[in-house]
Amino acid sequence: MIRVTVWGENVHEQKSEVVRKVYPEGMHECIAAGLREDAGLAVRTATLQQPDHGLTPEVLAETDVLTWWGHCAHKQVDDAIVERVQERVLGGMGLIVLHSGHFSKIFKRLMGTSCALKWREAGERERVWVCNPGHAIARGLGECFELPNEEMYGEPFGIPAPDEQVFIGWFEGGEVFRSGCCWRRGAGKVFYFQPGHETYPIYRDANVQLVLRNAVNWAAPEGGWAEPLKAPNVPVEKAREKLTPKGPSLHKPGEAGFR
Amino acid sequence: MIRVTVWGENVHEQKSEVVRKVYPEGMHECIAAGLREDAGLAVRTATLQQPDHGLTPEVLAETDVLTWWGHCAHKQVDDAIVERVQERVLGGMGLIVLHSGHFSKIFKRLMGTSCALKWREAGERERVWVCNPGHAIARGLGECFELPNEEMYGEPFGIPAPDEQVFIGWFEGGEVFRSGCCWRRGAGKVFYFQPGHETYPIYRDANVQLVLRNAVNWAAPEGGWAEPLKAPNVPVEKAREKLTPKGPSLHKPGEAGFR
Amino acid sequence: MIRVTVWGENVHEQKSEVVRKVYPEGMHECIAAGLREDAGLAVRTATLQQPDHGLTPEVLAETDVLTWWGHCAHKQVDDAIVERVQERVLGGMGLIVLHSGHFSKIFKRLMGTSCALKWREAGERERVWVCNPGHAIARGLGECFELPNEEMYGEPFGIPAPDEQVFIGWFEGGEVFRSGCCWRRGAGKVFYFQPGHETYPIYRDANVQLVLRNAVNWAAPEGGWAEPLKAPNVPVEKAREKLTPKGPSLHKPGEAGFR
Amino acid sequence: MIRVTVWGENVHEQKSEVVRKVYPEGMHECIAAGLREDAGLAVRTATLQQPDHGLTPEVLAETDVLTWWGHCAHKQVDDAIVERVQERVLGGMGLIVLHSGHFSKIFKRLMGTSCALKWREAGERERVWVCNPGHAIARGLGECFELPNEEMYGEPFGIPAPDEQVFIGWFEGGEVFRSGCCWRRGAGKVFYFQPGHETYPIYRDANVQLVLRNAVNWAAPEGGWAEPLKAPNVPVEKAREKLTPKGPSLHKPGEAGFR
Repeated sequence: MIRVTVWGENVHEQKSEVVRKVYPEGMHECIAAGLREDAGLAVRTATLQQPDHGLTPEVLAETDVLTWWGHCAHKQVDDAIVERVQERVLGGMGLIVLHSGHFSKIFKRLMGTSCALKWREAGERERVWVCNPGHAIARGLGECFELPNEEMYGEPFGIPAPDEQVFIGWFEGGEVFRSGCCWRRGAGKVFYFQPGHETYPIYRDANVQLVLRNAVNWAAPEGGWAEPLKAPNVPVEKAREKLTPKGPSLHKPGEAGFR
Repeated sequence: MIRVTVWGENVHEQKSEVVRKVYPEGMHECIAAGLREDAGLAVRTATLQQPDHGLTPEVLAETDVLTWWGHCAHKQVDDAIVERVQERVLGGMGLIVLHSGHFSKIFKRLMGTSCALKWREAGERERVWVCNPGHAIARGLGECFELPNEEMYGEPFGIPAPDEQVFIGWFEGGEVFRSGCCWRRGAGKVFYFQPGHETYPIYRDANVQLVLRNAVNWAAPEGGWAEPLKAPNVPVEKAREKLTPKGPSLHKPGEAGFR
Repeated sequence: MIRVTVWGENVHEQKSEVVRKVYPEGMHECIAAGLREDAGLAVRTATLQQPDHGLTPEVLAETDVLTWWGHCAHKQVDDAIVERVQERVLGGMGLIVLHSGHFSKIFKRLMGTSCALKWREAGERERVWVCNPGHAIARGLGECFELPNEEMYGEPFGIPAPDEQVFIGWFEGGEVFRSGCCWRRGAGKVFYFQPGHETYPIYRDANVQLVLRNAVNWAAPEGGWAEPLKAPNVPVEKAREKLTPKGPSLHKPGEAGFR
Repeated sequence: MIRVTVWGENVHEQKSEVVRKVYPEGMHECIAAGLREDAGLAVRTATLQQPDHGLTPEVLAETDVLTWWGHCAHKQVDDAIVERVQERVLGGMGLIVLHSGHFSKIFKRLMGTSCALKWREAGERERVWVCNPGHAIARGLGECFELPNEEMYGEPFGIPAPDEQVFIGWFEGGEVFRSGCCWRRGAGKVFYFQPGHETYPIYRDANVQLVLRNAVNWAAPEGGWAEPLKAPNVPVEKAREKLTPKGPSLHKPGEAGFR
């Protein structure tokens, strides 16, 4: 059983009539419902408005894969929570970043780049092409799938070169975008998936739901890296090869390193 | 002419008699002197103690490659300066991160990972092996070079998979380390180079100096990415293909995107 | 159930008294026995001497992961079989290349590089370090493991930059080596694992056996790429967007492309 | 001065009236003329029909970057010449593979994958987007450039994940393609560039010519890897650390390794 936490910013649904019509139950609940069609997934949701944004140490400890949708309230996400999520990713938790989540604090922090892109909200057609039909995240898809209305996201996308390119999007207005990208950070797997503008029912699309189920299965921890932030000192007497200290020293025995 | 700024934390030299004996002129001045042996490099230095840590917008705008050595005062580096350096790297400036700079704010920010490692200060022998004899950063080196005394840095090193592995270090006490790693972030090239503990005269070593000159030449900008943080809206009427807007909208025309 | 075929060159065992003493049952049978301790693996063996080297289309079609140990008879492997194996890897089959298999036709073909390395047969101690404790292939290992006697393999190793670095080896004689490397080729995963010189009982080592079981589980197909060599023509009338042909043509309708 | 050899298959120009009208001087001469506008390039041409296909050891030894256009006669390229070119790439020579060269023996050999793709010859519009405005190969381009008529090449493209993605193409008929990809193989840099169907005057396009000049400059050797195919034995007495041989041996002292 893979334990999934679906995180939703949950602001547009509260403030915008347009979005509420598309997702009366909240985007996070729609995403969660799609995932629940996979009997191997145990899915819960969390939102910005909850204490700790719903991401307490306990919740994260019990989360194998976290999905992240945010947009207008990126700045309201507490830095301490972002650090907590990052540490869990480095320790093995999978992370699926959705659509406007490209500008979330957690994604920018894990990528180290701008994560910027071009955009246009015109409800144009997108066709998402599969670059590797054998990839776990593309399982069960055809050579491509179409979204009748989507926000355009266009290159250049300010990301490090993906470890694996799973999807590239074609837009009616003439742009292209790296719509599905994989990276490993520490022991954790990260997948960015572009579709998901809040004013269209993208997360009700069968192909999109399939991709999300595939992605969550792909991102489930393979193992774990306990205490990934630790930088252990190895005392001379515990060196694997016999060693006699030489030269001057800055640190005294047993002293912690600088950070 | 490649314009290089050598940044030095410049704290150990002021506080530790041991370090001052090794680098009476300051580590940054020793590093700069080694670079100045390449007539194609225009080298200046900057330190933590200067206003803006010596990294004003003007200095960065005139810097093609920045080298970074820091250790005990990582936390004293102002976050605003770190952001400024990051933006310049994304825009094309090269960055050479040295030794204990693995835990600097700027390196952790660009990598997105822990950047943690094992360590031991025993003055043991290190042998740095070349993994790709044809790489620009290895030019002029033999198959390996030795440092009679170095701090041990050991795997696991908490970094994203390097785009290119240039060096791997062998340590007398039995460890190994990815001692020379390349990444691209935005338009900028980043090189991490492990040798350089402050209590040994590493930056006076001829091979180390050669590596640094090579690295600076390799990291010089190939071009540039103007305004790398910008996420431009493409209005419907400027779409490359003729487009009729469809579906509901969240944004009003001309409105900026969310960050 | 993951179906594994363990391929053995099976020449040293026949010709060399030294090797026969270490592996009286044949190296491939020893490797297979180690894998069979995982109840989720269905393991068979195949050898050079069999018709089609034991790798008929039927056997490959029923193989999820193939392991490959070869050394003195690389050149005797039929090119047609190598192509067949490559096509299966591109279609999704995992491939684990062992030790001297670095110079096998199939590994060189999948890498596209020299796959050359330094070597010394002195029975020296090797310590294999884990670079990513959270990787599936390192599951259950400590921070490193030791082999009291191993052939030295040293850098530079003529490979493309690995997608993931799992192990790096430290050798008593002073060298280092990228001992565990991952790549994806088409839909297939490839893992190279350095330990395994034929004159030492490496494949009886508990840690080595654990790595092999982990690697086989990691390399099992995630999905598949049917007919990975096919380059399909998309006729104008089947274009996803309505299209009117323009300009001169070389190909007649329905004609196959050139290869 | 970078020494460039432009290799042309030179068959369509001889056999097809359509192609001859577009390139009466031969495609290779048109490509060479575009490169010669860069005063830092010394450009010559070579063709399939010449002895050694014009790629004698002497010519290759004097070539810093080789460009390759082939299509209907891939199979006529001699395997020995392909090996010779591969060895030079591993030793440091740059290689620019053009359009239908995706199915050339040399590209398939260096990639290790199918290099297959979708295609359609309908003279449709292509728009080539820049994924990294700071990359050397994109220098001087705008955010994209258009080709009024081009053969469609579509995903999935059977390649290893590119080290760097420079361009992605958008096609009028609805497909996308990774149109500009970089890899390093040994000491050599490899760039694949998709535009260039023989029935349209693509190599007369100013942006395409600029890309080719940029690519040649990018691919010029940074250094070199002498004898990249060599796998040197390191005798015990030459080990960097003092070593006493242990355990049984297969090889006698001074014996060459197996290949």
